[in-house]
Amino acid sequence: MPARGDHDARRRDLSEAVWRVVAEQGFTGLTMRAVAAEMDASTGLVTHYFPSKAALVRHALELAAERVDTMERHVPSAPGLAGLRAAILDVVPVDPERVAMNRVWVSSWDLALADPTLGEAQRERYDRWRARLRGHVEAAVARGELPDGADVDDVAVSAAAFTHGLVTQALFDPAAFPVARLEGLVAGFVEGLGSQNPNPS
Amino acid sequence: MPARGDHDARRRDLSEAVWRVVAEQGFTGLTMRAVAAEMDASTGLVTHYFPSKAALVRHALELAAERVDTMERHVPSAPGLAGLRAAILDVVPVDPERVAMNRVWVSSWDLALADPTLGEAQRERYDRWRARLRGHVEAAVARGELPDGADVDDVAVSAAAFTHGLVTQALFDPAAFPVARLEGLVAGFVEGLGSQNPNPS
Repeated sequence: MPARGDHDARRRDLSEAVWRVVAEQGFTGLTMRAVAAEMDASTGLVTHYFPSKAALVRHALELAAERVDTMERHVPSAPGLAGLRAAILDVVPVDPERVAMNRVWVSSWDLALADPTLGEAQRERYDRWRARLRGHVEAAVARGELPDGADVDDVAVSAAAFTHGLVTQALFDPAAFPVARLEGLVAGFVEGLGSQNPNPS
Repeated sequence: MPARGDHDARRRDLSEAVWRVVAEQGFTGLTMRAVAAEMDASTGLVTHYFPSKAALVRHALELAAERVDTMERHVPSAPGLAGLRAAILDVVPVDPERVAMNRVWVSSWDLALADPTLGEAQRERYDRWRARLRGHVEAAVARGELPDGADVDDVAVSAAAFTHGLVTQALFDPAAFPVARLEGLVAGFVEGLGSQNPNPS
């Protein structure tokens, strides 16, 4: 690798390489050697910035969190159920960026289920995500799109559940889940919430 | 480890140890050393049966598939939506066996997303599972529990999605998802399908 004056630029190249490796090869495949190969550099350069596998993993998870925070989001036509639909579409793999992000998050669950600190971080992420979804559900109730007695916590859990389960199915079978189908499934789920009788049997 | 005449018994002990390790420590934690420690044996014994990490992984996935095939299943009170509810309850982590099974499957996605053969196996598992769910959905349509025009494929995808997304939330936060809550959420999801107006807006 040619010498570079710019430490930040090199760090950015490294981050990009870490991201591509973990999106393609998962956390099992995230090794010094794979990152070095991805950027056509020596493993020595990688270990200079990331002295251990744990440091690589930490950095990949930081990148994933950063990308979630900075990604472009769908703009709902209205609050309430339209907002809920937009929030779900923000997460499903409708473009290459969201495919990569989901691959990284889903892959991280292997480590997170076994590591109490990572597991707690994932639990908190779920809490925050459900709270955001609940905001849309509460708006839908206020707008009369959902019945007054709707359990907003349960609807938020169900929406998060539907979303992540759709993500995993789509990641393993992209051909069966083109964007139009994903959008249709999301619209159908949200419409289904809105069209339920207030007093189901 | 004391000598044993019984090759099958030792193999069973090894399988149990592999299962416990992967359910607790994930596929990242599934190493010769961890399996040996789990059964208080030498790593030599483990490598005698499983010469590589890949062989350990393969065995853990075989065990997971076997356990899905042989697990006790919920008996529905009726076909149709009650059958769909029972099929979903078969998967959610309502007992320690299902917690372990789900931890292993969810953990396996890190490898499966990066390995074409494992990924294809996971894709086929989803196909088979959705086909089973679709059978219940078709029965529900035939019984008039769902509208005639319901897209049975979409409902099967949504049911699988809801189920797996509930699984992941529950695995990371068991305290927030005790059995009664899981059962209530599943019942709510299935009732919601049944109470939708035939022509949603």
